[in-house]
Amino acid sequence: MGSFQIDFEPIGRQGQCSGETSLRDCACQLGVELVSLCGGEGTCGRCKVQVLDGNTSKPTSAEMRSLSTQELNASYRLACQTYPLGDCRIYVPPESLTAPQRTQVEGLEVEVRPDPVVAAYRVEMASPTLQDYEADAERLLAALREQHNVRCRGIDIRVLRELSPRLRSCKWQLQASVRGDEVVALALWPGRHIGLAVDLGTTKIAGYLLDLSTGKVLVSQGMMNPQIAYGEDIIARIAHALGSPQEAEQLSKLAASALNELAFALCAKTGAVPREIVDAVVVGNTAMHHLLLGLPVEQLALSPYVPAVKGAQDIKAHDVGIEIAPGGYVHLLPNIAGFVGADHVAMLLATRIGQKEGVVLALDIGTNMEVCLSCNGVINSVSCASGPAFEGAHIKHGMRASEGAIEHLRITGDKVEYQTIGGAPPVGLCGSGIVDAIAQLYLVNVLDDRGRMNPDHPRVRLCKGEREFVLVSEKESRDGVPIAITQRDVREVQLAKGAIRTGIQVLLDTNSRSEEDLEEVFIAGAFGSYIDIASAMTIGMLPPLPLERFKQVGNAAGTGARMALISKRMREQAQDIADRVRYIELAATAEFSRTFAQANYLGTYRLVRGKRETVQK
Amino acid sequence: MGSFQIDFEPIGRQGQCSGETSLRDCACQLGVELVSLCGGEGTCGRCKVQVLDGNTSKPTSAEMRSLSTQELNASYRLACQTYPLGDCRIYVPPESLTAPQRTQVEGLEVEVRPDPVVAAYRVEMASPTLQDYEADAERLLAALREQHNVRCRGIDIRVLRELSPRLRSCKWQLQASVRGDEVVALALWPGRHIGLAVDLGTTKIAGYLLDLSTGKVLVSQGMMNPQIAYGEDIIARIAHALGSPQEAEQLSKLAASALNELAFALCAKTGAVPREIVDAVVVGNTAMHHLLLGLPVEQLALSPYVPAVKGAQDIKAHDVGIEIAPGGYVHLLPNIAGFVGADHVAMLLATRIGQKEGVVLALDIGTNMEVCLSCNGVINSVSCASGPAFEGAHIKHGMRASEGAIEHLRITGDKVEYQTIGGAPPVGLCGSGIVDAIAQLYLVNVLDDRGRMNPDHPRVRLCKGEREFVLVSEKESRDGVPIAITQRDVREVQLAKGAIRTGIQVLLDTNSRSEEDLEEVFIAGAFGSYIDIASAMTIGMLPPLPLERFKQVGNAAGTGARMALISKRMREQAQDIADRVRYIELAATAEFSRTFAQANYLGTYRLVRGKRETVQK
Repeated sequence: MGSFQIDFEPIGRQGQCSGETSLRDCACQLGVELVSLCGGEGTCGRCKVQVLDGNTSKPTSAEMRSLSTQELNASYRLACQTYPLGDCRIYVPPESLTAPQRTQVEGLEVEVRPDPVVAAYRVEMASPTLQDYEADAERLLAALREQHNVRCRGIDIRVLRELSPRLRSCKWQLQASVRGDEVVALALWPGRHIGLAVDLGTTKIAGYLLDLSTGKVLVSQGMMNPQIAYGEDIIARIAHALGSPQEAEQLSKLAASALNELAFALCAKTGAVPREIVDAVVVGNTAMHHLLLGLPVEQLALSPYVPAVKGAQDIKAHDVGIEIAPGGYVHLLPNIAGFVGADHVAMLLATRIGQKEGVVLALDIGTNMEVCLSCNGVINSVSCASGPAFEGAHIKHGMRASEGAIEHLRITGDKVEYQTIGGAPPVGLCGSGIVDAIAQLYLVNVLDDRGRMNPDHPRVRLCKGEREFVLVSEKESRDGVPIAITQRDVREVQLAKGAIRTGIQVLLDTNSRSEEDLEEVFIAGAFGSYIDIASAMTIGMLPPLPLERFKQVGNAAGTGARMALISKRMREQAQDIADRVRYIELAATAEFSRTFAQANYLGTYRLVRGKRETVQK
Repeated sequence: MGSFQIDFEPIGRQGQCSGETSLRDCACQLGVELVSLCGGEGTCGRCKVQVLDGNTSKPTSAEMRSLSTQELNASYRLACQTYPLGDCRIYVPPESLTAPQRTQVEGLEVEVRPDPVVAAYRVEMASPTLQDYEADAERLLAALREQHNVRCRGIDIRVLRELSPRLRSCKWQLQASVRGDEVVALALWPGRHIGLAVDLGTTKIAGYLLDLSTGKVLVSQGMMNPQIAYGEDIIARIAHALGSPQEAEQLSKLAASALNELAFALCAKTGAVPREIVDAVVVGNTAMHHLLLGLPVEQLALSPYVPAVKGAQDIKAHDVGIEIAPGGYVHLLPNIAGFVGADHVAMLLATRIGQKEGVVLALDIGTNMEVCLSCNGVINSVSCASGPAFEGAHIKHGMRASEGAIEHLRITGDKVEYQTIGGAPPVGLCGSGIVDAIAQLYLVNVLDDRGRMNPDHPRVRLCKGEREFVLVSEKESRDGVPIAITQRDVREVQLAKGAIRTGIQVLLDTNSRSEEDLEEVFIAGAFGSYIDIASAMTIGMLPPLPLERFKQVGNAAGTGARMALISKRMREQAQDIADRVRYIELAATAEFSRTFAQANYLGTYRLVRGKRETVQK
């Protein structure tokens, strides 16, 4: 058997593999990490891929069981069961990738025609003489006018400070970056024309460096939000900021310096330097937005929880401590409410739900959670205090999605199969693992619909007076530390997922719609992108709908930020979306308490007029 | 004899005086310091005042000799010879006041209808509730729109940072200051509405605090430019700035901190604080302008001496290190050329010469000198390197206009009469004293028209091989230190005054005009305002013209700055003036050398086609 060229898309890895290597092993050799709970037995069905081009072995009986006819017809296969018979082009859906790799592949790529706010022009000038002694600034402005018909009213003071020596050192020929009627940067011609898009999350920060001319992402990178040292969630951060003006400033400076660090790292990858970045867009929830800008947050923490400002902001990057081009601006997309921020607007922009016909839901599940419902373009949103359970907090063996976290698991009889991030020995459960665990425990009747743990299962035991289900026992664990799900963990998850389901339901009720009306459900955010949708339905977090209606769009806020970075039109659209969204204060609605009581139940059920209608297990 | 009420204008002093007290003594009692060389003998003619109202004693024979018929008809009198016969209102022309007092009386008060760039509005808002949870910023903007029909697009980031707590502490009612479409300051209602105008001179800084609603000056104050520690004139400062970026920044910071100090002092006098200042205007020569803004100055120092920027600048005060209202701007009037700066534009604005019919000359004599000629609105300007001789530098016993400086003197035979600033024992000569001295020495034939010192006068002696004229001998001096004018001093003054006269002549030549065509001559600047015009004509610094054509307008640059501060229209006019002025590089003109050679002569003469036509002594 020969060796074939296998391309994995959209992750963009390619290499040679023999016909005796399964697509799963082939992927593994090329560094593409596919989910696998069964270890290649063909039973867990998690390593699903789509063969776009090329011949492969015939589907096995295992695949016949795992995949639907529809999927088989669309050339979906289990990578562990499939062998190449020639060169192949393989599509790897995000859900088949392990968490760390999935962050590299954006779930959502939206084509936006570049229409950047900053334009770059090549200008050439005559040097001054005793007969032609026009001032340097006016000489540059005249050249822009005469050579490009661009009429600028001014030059940023920081650019002005470097103009005279620059003009002379580059022999009166340079690249001027113009924003509106202002010169914001100078560079040697030909220079780069790059911008920075940032999703400033409570936990993670994602940064993207884009070519403003083509709109293409040059490089991207993530990092932890260093503010995390001062509180894991928004409320804790706000509490810290309220301690003293110095503490608030500390958080503000931490955010800015993180962005500077990120910009530096992104630039380094392309041989650029941050001062070549001529424009930046930052999105974040309202608290992150306020802390970055140095805005007060006290009113965010007190009823009625109002933001200091809602509208989009264009602020000199210098005034926020962000070190890009001397005259560059940072654009912040608008907020919607105290707990529905610019990141949510970015997500709505990326999913384009405001432009869609029909009934579309968008969920942004992160440390905080926002839900948005668009009914033929009429948009309502709520914010749910889903709590940090899905981030692994308040869960006995919970942890963030990092190496060694169980991200997926399956329980068969008394056997627990799991997959950890990075394939490392298990050290805890991350959000998607927690959802899987609760769903599996419910399916094997260890949990009833009220979430009570049945003591009869061999893996259930009492620990300090509390029941817990042992996922990894002391013996099974490499270092002798067990991993379990406790009764209290189950309660935490019920509250968290109940809040999400309640948010969805209140929005549907407000718009006199039912769950079946939902034509599309976008799920964005770190955790939301990694959960198993079926598991989420099994625990009653999501309403029971055909799987294809769900779209896990990864970091859609980051996508929205990138769209706004390269397009003036998109910024206008974002403001339009923010203006159109009507925010509903969840706790103030009549249906809240009744719905919340129901939404805490486990199981697959519909909510109809506040009642549960159980769908078969 | 009774007691009468005497008002001295425009200095604004009034009090009771008996009919046995001369107006001079009366003025002295009220703290109005009149020039007097002869000690009240009626011979020096320097204490000239005008009786606006009220009866006084008849003119004496001394007055008949000193005053022209025209002056006598206009009720001009010598204060030392005049006694009140009833309540009187007396006008004191600036030239009759001693230097320190003259600075208090602005030579030029121009009525400008206030039309400030920043407006203040009272706004009242409802506090947010769970039903009305609009963001704070949008709530303020809506109130401005609804209550004042003012549409703002944004709020300065620094104002935004304090908005939320402010709204709450002032119970949703405050004063918002708006500039264009931006909120730049917040204050309790009713708050002050004040602005700062500054003339940033090479040597002195003059500051004015104005009420923006009425346009009135609330207080004014002067201070030395602390940059002086790094060089007395522009060239020395530039040289220092070129030393290193740190040294340039040092000058920039010094200027900003001086302005902050001045603002603080001005505010303190009215019970205000600098952050209540919502707008500022600064004028200065091009070098001071550049150093304040942190602009590079190297190109200013090298041919063809171009400014980094010419156009008017509106810069956030924060970006220049000036501490006023958080969102306040500092407006810098436009420059004309490398050595004709915004202060000159301010002077042209204040004298309104651009709007005048006929042929008008404006001289701004300070550490540097600019001359401007308007022929029916067509304006040309030159800059003259007059040097610092008139500031007392490079003159053996020269000094600045401070206590103990001889500011006026007269030589009769071998007797020297003089007046010092503050009436203190003489310690040196300031600019006006130097001009008087050279003029007197020429008139008594100690100097010939080439400036050569005649050794025959009893007060002329040799000192270290050089001739000098002793004004105050060792014996006459209180501390035994003599004050003399040396042959070298005379040469220095000839060069300085020659440069001025050349500037005037080149402008006239360029416009095919002669000296007699000059209908008005405005003389501004510290030194220019204090010199004796007759003396200046006697040494050939100024062309021989009737005295009434000269107008000593004091700190006209400061007046222009104040006009621009209170009026948007005036800022436009200033830009229009700057655009209209054609700058002539003096050294590049064909007539320069020939004219300069002639202009160095002493004596009263006309310059006609490069030739001197002596007017009788």
